[in-house]
Amino acid sequence: MRRCSYEGIICLVVAVATVASVIALVSVSGQETQNSIYVATMPSGYRDWQWVSSHEEGNLNSLAAVLGNDVAIKAYRERTLPFPDGTIIAALHYRHTASEDNNKVFGREQSFVPGSPTNIQFMVKDSKKYAATGGWGFGHFNTDGKTGDEAFMKTCFPCHEKTKATDLVFTR
Amino acid sequence: MRRCSYEGIICLVVAVATVASVIALVSVSGQETQNSIYVATMPSGYRDWQWVSSHEEGNLNSLAAVLGNDVAIKAYRERTLPFPDGTIIAALHYRHTASEDNNKVFGREQSFVPGSPTNIQFMVKDSKKYAATGGWGFGHFNTDGKTGDEAFMKTCFPCHEKTKATDLVFTR
Repeated sequence: MRRCSYEGIICLVVAVATVASVIALVSVSGQETQNSIYVATMPSGYRDWQWVSSHEEGNLNSLAAVLGNDVAIKAYRERTLPFPDGTIIAALHYRHTASEDNNKVFGREQSFVPGSPTNIQFMVKDSKKYAATGGWGFGHFNTDGKTGDEAFMKTCFPCHEKTKATDLVFTR
Repeated sequence: MRRCSYEGIICLVVAVATVASVIALVSVSGQETQNSIYVATMPSGYRDWQWVSSHEEGNLNSLAAVLGNDVAIKAYRERTLPFPDGTIIAALHYRHTASEDNNKVFGREQSFVPGSPTNIQFMVKDSKKYAATGGWGFGHFNTDGKTGDEAFMKTCFPCHEKTKATDLVFTR
């Protein structure tokens, strides 16, 4: 099996914004560039979506929450594969940080929490628009709201493609 | 600073149920035992609540998601302290487990996800009913839906009481 490139892993697991700026950003709506093969505009309202899962990425110092819109949550609960068009899955990435406050109470380094946010990534299912990448549009938004550049975005699909059994989605 | 007892930490961070049984359980509603100082009936609908945070507990092999009902989410966003009556915060605890599937793609042990669920804990704010424990009712439900026993439940408050600055709530 081919390894993911380092950028590929970053594309998958690393992270946008303080919570405040995230909340500010979700109020921005806009049109995506026509024919973009990546997600160019951050989907709105994601911070109100329901929790699917969390994951910690040891070597990448990352703690993430995976949230899904209503279409995603329904598909997860009914174990629908492939995910239907309209599914959006968000991965909110933060530094994996020891909580000094909690650890004081525990008397040892025990508790790790989301530290500074690093980026938010989205997978948007549109089987026609994103046919070239398995029906999924990939989006990456750094803390400044800027998207990943072309070279970076090219690393998303090759890594996700290795999870074909779950329709290119890592999180169960 | 006095250390929490081991049970105290467990009370705080360890975990109910498979997702399926959790979903089944939330449909159960009921009346709490009058005058109970602990939360005796699992609040309904919590799996639809919004995500507040996640935390990993190194020594306890635990990965948790903290969800809040609408009152809790509003209070968190507006930084309201103390939390108003009606706030319910849920901590869904799972084993902190290496994802074999993800790690195959990464080519190394990299990705840690929620493993088997262990328990769900709740903090329910009712400043009159739970006046003896800082206005918070503590609830602990194991995978079989059973609550923590009296001795176990007594360990919740002493540890949470150490976070007075944030109204006895660890998660920011």
